[in-house]
Amino acid sequence: MIKIAVLGYGTVGSGVVEVIKTNQELINKRVGEELDIKYVLDLREFPGTLAEHLIVHDFEQIVNDEEVKIVVEVMGGIEPAYTFVKRSLLAGKSVATSNKALVAKHGAELLAIAKEKNINFLYEASVGGGIPIIRPLTSSLTGDEIVEITGILNGTTNYMMSKMYNENADYDAVLKEAQAMGYAERDPSADVEGHDACRKIAILSSIISGKLVDFEDIYTEGITNITLKDIQYAKAMGMKIKLLASCKRSGEKLCAIVAPCLVSKSHPLYSIEDVFNAIFVKGNMLGDSMFYGSGAGKLPTASAVVGDIVEAAKNPNRSMMSTWTTEKLELEEKSETKKKFFVRVNGTAAALKDKLQEVFGAIEVVTLEGEENEFGFVTEVMSEGCYEKCAAQFPEICHMIRVE
Amino acid sequence: MIKIAVLGYGTVGSGVVEVIKTNQELINKRVGEELDIKYVLDLREFPGTLAEHLIVHDFEQIVNDEEVKIVVEVMGGIEPAYTFVKRSLLAGKSVATSNKALVAKHGAELLAIAKEKNINFLYEASVGGGIPIIRPLTSSLTGDEIVEITGILNGTTNYMMSKMYNENADYDAVLKEAQAMGYAERDPSADVEGHDACRKIAILSSIISGKLVDFEDIYTEGITNITLKDIQYAKAMGMKIKLLASCKRSGEKLCAIVAPCLVSKSHPLYSIEDVFNAIFVKGNMLGDSMFYGSGAGKLPTASAVVGDIVEAAKNPNRSMMSTWTTEKLELEEKSETKKKFFVRVNGTAAALKDKLQEVFGAIEVVTLEGEENEFGFVTEVMSEGCYEKCAAQFPEICHMIRVE
Repeated sequence: MIKIAVLGYGTVGSGVVEVIKTNQELINKRVGEELDIKYVLDLREFPGTLAEHLIVHDFEQIVNDEEVKIVVEVMGGIEPAYTFVKRSLLAGKSVATSNKALVAKHGAELLAIAKEKNINFLYEASVGGGIPIIRPLTSSLTGDEIVEITGILNGTTNYMMSKMYNENADYDAVLKEAQAMGYAERDPSADVEGHDACRKIAILSSIISGKLVDFEDIYTEGITNITLKDIQYAKAMGMKIKLLASCKRSGEKLCAIVAPCLVSKSHPLYSIEDVFNAIFVKGNMLGDSMFYGSGAGKLPTASAVVGDIVEAAKNPNRSMMSTWTTEKLELEEKSETKKKFFVRVNGTAAALKDKLQEVFGAIEVVTLEGEENEFGFVTEVMSEGCYEKCAAQFPEICHMIRVE
Repeated sequence: MIKIAVLGYGTVGSGVVEVIKTNQELINKRVGEELDIKYVLDLREFPGTLAEHLIVHDFEQIVNDEEVKIVVEVMGGIEPAYTFVKRSLLAGKSVATSNKALVAKHGAELLAIAKEKNINFLYEASVGGGIPIIRPLTSSLTGDEIVEITGILNGTTNYMMSKMYNENADYDAVLKEAQAMGYAERDPSADVEGHDACRKIAILSSIISGKLVDFEDIYTEGITNITLKDIQYAKAMGMKIKLLASCKRSGEKLCAIVAPCLVSKSHPLYSIEDVFNAIFVKGNMLGDSMFYGSGAGKLPTASAVVGDIVEAAKNPNRSMMSTWTTEKLELEEKSETKKKFFVRVNGTAAALKDKLQEVFGAIEVVTLEGEENEFGFVTEVMSEGCYEKCAAQFPEICHMIRVE
């Protein structure tokens, strides 16, 4: 029998207990022996729930119990999660976590401890919820150099972008709806300002580079400035606007960014709707691939955590992950990264097009029917730095959205 | 240094050599030591290629060489592949294969030998080409009971269906084009009659059930009877026609089928175009997920084979896969499986609708603009057996397509 402890009985924690209890027989078969939840750590009591008789309030009871071989950290946040995880690993217990903030900030150190102790620190659920992406990257796509990962990594904002597009609803209305549905928090900033997606792409970037990509180095722009008018332009161009978190190889460097982007119909991410997440991965041999599923939610996230528990249980004395070191990776300067830009301008194309082309080079003008006071255009591929220099010459520019 | 041998220097075999040579440094790092191709087995010589100095003509040289730890079978077909793989495993060498026919027919036996010998028989490339699907099913989605797998598992037919839909081209024209592009063989029957997809869904069904699903038990219908008129009806309903290979839990049983199906816009498989493959997986906890990528082609398939080689190299004395036994699984009778059916009828809805409703129950009539000699209708959910009984009463019925 393999005994585990679950730290935190919130949404994901109660999901983990539910998944294990629901699929207990199947899971035991896959592990090769019985998987038993010995403790659930929480400050609260949970009478009448599956955790009723498992609740303990003191972490010491768990870390000092030699029977506990796997600790499941689903509390979220940095502290006390970090201390608990580190102490668990140092005590020789493998850890499975869904905590993206913890993995992005302390992953390198925790992975090193796990390797040193010949146990596992697993974090499949920290990116893409229930979507298998960490293990495919670390155990399947190992014949490839990964040259790009671009993901819709935040369900809340994808729900909002889908609603705005499909129902011509404005930002404030869809945010309220997302909050009412429980998809967005009362303070939605972690989602709508892109911080959540930023931590996730930092983790994926660290995996494919083998070095620490600091999430604070990643330029991050949320969806708070996206309006219905932007959506109308997107439609006029046959595109959609999605909050993309991406990491691309550029020569010897990686560039990483989180920003709302225009996505064309031919891109696999175009059709990802509502709260679903998807991660587009390009390998130098494999070509294009994509992983799609529920990026959040109690049971999908818990499903990924339980998948990690099963792996940890099947590999009690064997560190499986070759991942990233504490050496920090220097990303390509944002000003050097290259792409096309969609730009909205106050005024008329008739009056401004020539001057714009003088400065930006070839541009493609986009107009909206019935809109006489502004127009849009798409640039050729150029660097962010070059775009900024050009744009500085036009006070008429009122908004810019990157084109994927 | 880990020495490997590649059996067959055809499309996939030469791809495997190319992937390893191209990403050699990266692959060595992931394996933890140098991966070296010692032999390539082929009847031909390949002067001027990467395999020039590696070619041998006698399998005995490989199987008797104790230095060779991993054998890569990319010859295709049952014999001599089966004999070579079995002898390699019995000699204590792990095997990676891309051979769906071999895995579907002899997988259970070969997996058992690998387990017995504490080595690995890996076959990621046998389903979905470069798409990671075998390892996600066996190592990631292990907290779930998989209740459905539905895939677009054949690139050739998806290319043809996409062309017919997007360009209003007829079957014969797109088949010729697919052959000219090298997507379809001169004898295209393995693709267009669904046999290729059938072997792949048999493998996936065996994995999720843990028992042997015999591909000969799976009802298989190809795309040879799909006409432009069917596509027009699909468009009128806002749907597409895709060759789907699916396996679904139905009570205690599994039902598996390969057939062209109508897929609605809200289904993730709807947007899979051209030669791309995708596999939709539903777990009882995870909910919906999908894996997308290149289902065939030299380098994508080779990428998956090399991923398996890396896994085998990292796990020299450890059988990783818990998969299916030789015990045969009895599938649900086709006549008992339930779905909706789209039916085309000679005549007019005005004349036939009442009688159809008497027999089929509620139906939804679909008409094509300008088409006065026939119409279509969609049934409610009913069993295949019940559908057949009802349909037998209408000699006017000229075609039926299942609705996913």
